[in-house]
Amino acid sequence: MPGQDLDRLFSPRAVAVVGASTNVDSPGHDYVRALREFAFEGEVYPINPRADEIAGYRAYPTLGEVPGAVDLVICCIPANGVPGVVDACGDGGIPYLHLFTGRLSETGDADAAALEAEIAEKARARGVRLLGPNGLGVYHPAGRIAFRPDLPRTAGTVAFLSQSGNNAVEVVIRGVARGLGFGKVANYGNGLDLTPGELLGWLADDPETEVIGAYVEGVADGRGFYEGLRRAASQKPVVIQKAGRSAEGAGAAASHTAALAGEAAVWSGMLRQAGAIEAHSQEQLLDLMVAASLLERPRGRRVAVAGGGGGRSVQSADACAAQGLALPPLPADVRERVAERAPALADWIRNPVDQSILAGSGLSANGMLAMMAGSGAYDLGIANVGEEWFLGRPEAEGRLRHACTRLQEAIAGSPIPIAVVLGATEMTVEWQRTLVDSVREELIEAGLAVFPTVERAALAFGRLAPR
Amino acid sequence: MPGQDLDRLFSPRAVAVVGASTNVDSPGHDYVRALREFAFEGEVYPINPRADEIAGYRAYPTLGEVPGAVDLVICCIPANGVPGVVDACGDGGIPYLHLFTGRLSETGDADAAALEAEIAEKARARGVRLLGPNGLGVYHPAGRIAFRPDLPRTAGTVAFLSQSGNNAVEVVIRGVARGLGFGKVANYGNGLDLTPGELLGWLADDPETEVIGAYVEGVADGRGFYEGLRRAASQKPVVIQKAGRSAEGAGAAASHTAALAGEAAVWSGMLRQAGAIEAHSQEQLLDLMVAASLLERPRGRRVAVAGGGGGRSVQSADACAAQGLALPPLPADVRERVAERAPALADWIRNPVDQSILAGSGLSANGMLAMMAGSGAYDLGIANVGEEWFLGRPEAEGRLRHACTRLQEAIAGSPIPIAVVLGATEMTVEWQRTLVDSVREELIEAGLAVFPTVERAALAFGRLAPR
Repeated sequence: MPGQDLDRLFSPRAVAVVGASTNVDSPGHDYVRALREFAFEGEVYPINPRADEIAGYRAYPTLGEVPGAVDLVICCIPANGVPGVVDACGDGGIPYLHLFTGRLSETGDADAAALEAEIAEKARARGVRLLGPNGLGVYHPAGRIAFRPDLPRTAGTVAFLSQSGNNAVEVVIRGVARGLGFGKVANYGNGLDLTPGELLGWLADDPETEVIGAYVEGVADGRGFYEGLRRAASQKPVVIQKAGRSAEGAGAAASHTAALAGEAAVWSGMLRQAGAIEAHSQEQLLDLMVAASLLERPRGRRVAVAGGGGGRSVQSADACAAQGLALPPLPADVRERVAERAPALADWIRNPVDQSILAGSGLSANGMLAMMAGSGAYDLGIANVGEEWFLGRPEAEGRLRHACTRLQEAIAGSPIPIAVVLGATEMTVEWQRTLVDSVREELIEAGLAVFPTVERAALAFGRLAPR
Repeated sequence: MPGQDLDRLFSPRAVAVVGASTNVDSPGHDYVRALREFAFEGEVYPINPRADEIAGYRAYPTLGEVPGAVDLVICCIPANGVPGVVDACGDGGIPYLHLFTGRLSETGDADAAALEAEIAEKARARGVRLLGPNGLGVYHPAGRIAFRPDLPRTAGTVAFLSQSGNNAVEVVIRGVARGLGFGKVANYGNGLDLTPGELLGWLADDPETEVIGAYVEGVADGRGFYEGLRRAASQKPVVIQKAGRSAEGAGAAASHTAALAGEAAVWSGMLRQAGAIEAHSQEQLLDLMVAASLLERPRGRRVAVAGGGGGRSVQSADACAAQGLALPPLPADVRERVAERAPALADWIRNPVDQSILAGSGLSANGMLAMMAGSGAYDLGIANVGEEWFLGRPEAEGRLRHACTRLQEAIAGSPIPIAVVLGATEMTVEWQRTLVDSVREELIEAGLAVFPTVERAALAFGRLAPR
């Protein structure tokens, strides 16, 4: 059963905002301003009976008085006004209504739940599809629409669905800083009509979408979710963070998005069966989306690791082993090439490559990584930059930048995917901090997948590589 | 059996550096320069037959020609010269010899291992205690001594022992950025004579040391390690990161510090029995040292969580539950105070407190946290700052700073320990990044324990709180 084409939800030709406000500190203003700042190309109709103009757009007293066709209405008025807005959408033949409006079933109040049911019933009767309630709605940079004016303009191919609003904002802001480009993002809140299952099923065939992530607290329609997920996961990588795994989290989910969270083990089994990749935290979700979007999927589980000192090598080996990755020794041809250059190292050097023992040998961690990547003995690679070592040397900046340029070259020439490990900027010396931030930015701008710890890189590869 | 007093190792009155170098890009220069830059108060004697002066100190051709008493010799010459240095120390009555010198048993080479054994035997015979070989040695800001000139000058009460050198540097740099002040730090490398067990046993009674962390790859003397650890852990919090847990990691450890890594499960059992807190990664080690050093140890496992949106609340509940922390509901008196101010919230608001539903109620997450902390119903608290929300509001900076000031007040007045969650600065907008960095710095400078994710705060509390 193919679902409805949701293209006009994410790429509406004209948008009306009911409850648009002149108060710059209100969502009713933000939605309008976001369209202005994203240079939305269609008509924008703020609806407000007491304003002439909002964020540079002419305002209209009612939805019925808008002069042109509208694909999407964004609704920011209190809950008791929503049935009237549904009617107005029905009258105007408007296909999509996004309800930012909340304080419905998630409050636990019986009257509010009854009102939510009434809204659902009316929308069904009038043929209006609902996104929300209690959700921020749509962020789709390519469609020039966003739920917050300050979100990044960068467009890309990563779709993201979130039951929670602030969480969606966090994932977008943090994801872009990690190098992700977002395509279609939806915060569906209580998921009253448009469910994550239907959205996933539609994204399966969306040509703009190459990777899908989702933050889910619970679903009302388990079967539909599974079908949509399976359909999507059969065509592209889908990463799911299921929150509300614990009884305590499930209780919080009920009061947040009225979600029925369900058993964690049942969820994990279902996600595995559907072919999805499971994340257990926002951090894992981001790491897995970064790996799925920026790296080729590895063909096997044999990892080559190079860079950093001996302690980093030991910890890297532990981290990879903990994720079920194999660390094959250096193959004979690589070992021979080492022996030619540095006989003393030939029987000492291993995988992971300890950079500190290479000093004075003419061999570098990047050179070793390139040899290993090209040897056919490995399916994936992890490069430890080990930036703290450079910071203690003379000409630290030049050396660190040089090493990172060589690393980029090694990765560009590599037939296997290679993740880069460069720590979070945890340092108090100003120039060191600025330098590490700037090096990280450069690597990310070059399209590399950068992880703050080897444990996180190993986890991402461990979940993406075939078993 | 009380060990030797190691005070003169960490606070030597005079230091000689054998293999001191005029080459600014060498460890033999760094050790001398570090003493200069840390304003070491005693005599410094660079030993170099071809130099008159190094880093501003007069150089001497041999150790025997040094005009005064020396407590510590730092040795940077190649391994085959070390026996002569041991003899010279013996002749001069010098109690401590730190061997930066490596390429000994860790290379796997039989001749090198034999030389290492000879050095050990000679040192024992001559009454010279060895730190190392293959280690960076001592960093003790209060004693004005450091193994790298660029390390932080901040002195404190956290001792750290590390088998690995670069790892020690990383932990120090990252730890100081997290608000840790380091006391006695030693990178003991191959641990040929002075072992982590002896060092731990001595730190147990060291009045300067309040918290101990250690990174251990393996120990030769298991019984001695256990005894020293138990002695230390009975008197102060001791956090141990045991690396080389996997077979792959153990192999890397052997070639790094010649360590026999041993079974992970045996190690975990032993650490538990000794009363130590186990860390499974450098990140956990740092988080646990931060919690142990900057927070009172909680009296129980009941956690109060406040701040951030609904998604953050759900994820916080999951994170706490995963670490075995309990999330009791709001006690009756807190609920009554909420009902007085905001009747609609009294039956909706929960623990974790979802900040997004407080809007317009006159209640704030910080106010809720203060009420909960003072209620007697909780043993510890976690405050989610939720900075991404602020960044989207007008006057973001003022509002975020105000909220953080209020948070500091709430924590200052709290009878229970409260950890702060403020994300890693993963954002591309320059002013947002600068703002979040600066807010984090301010919180850390105020002495608060700041964690980048609620999962990491919960893990730290979960391991420190009594079961």
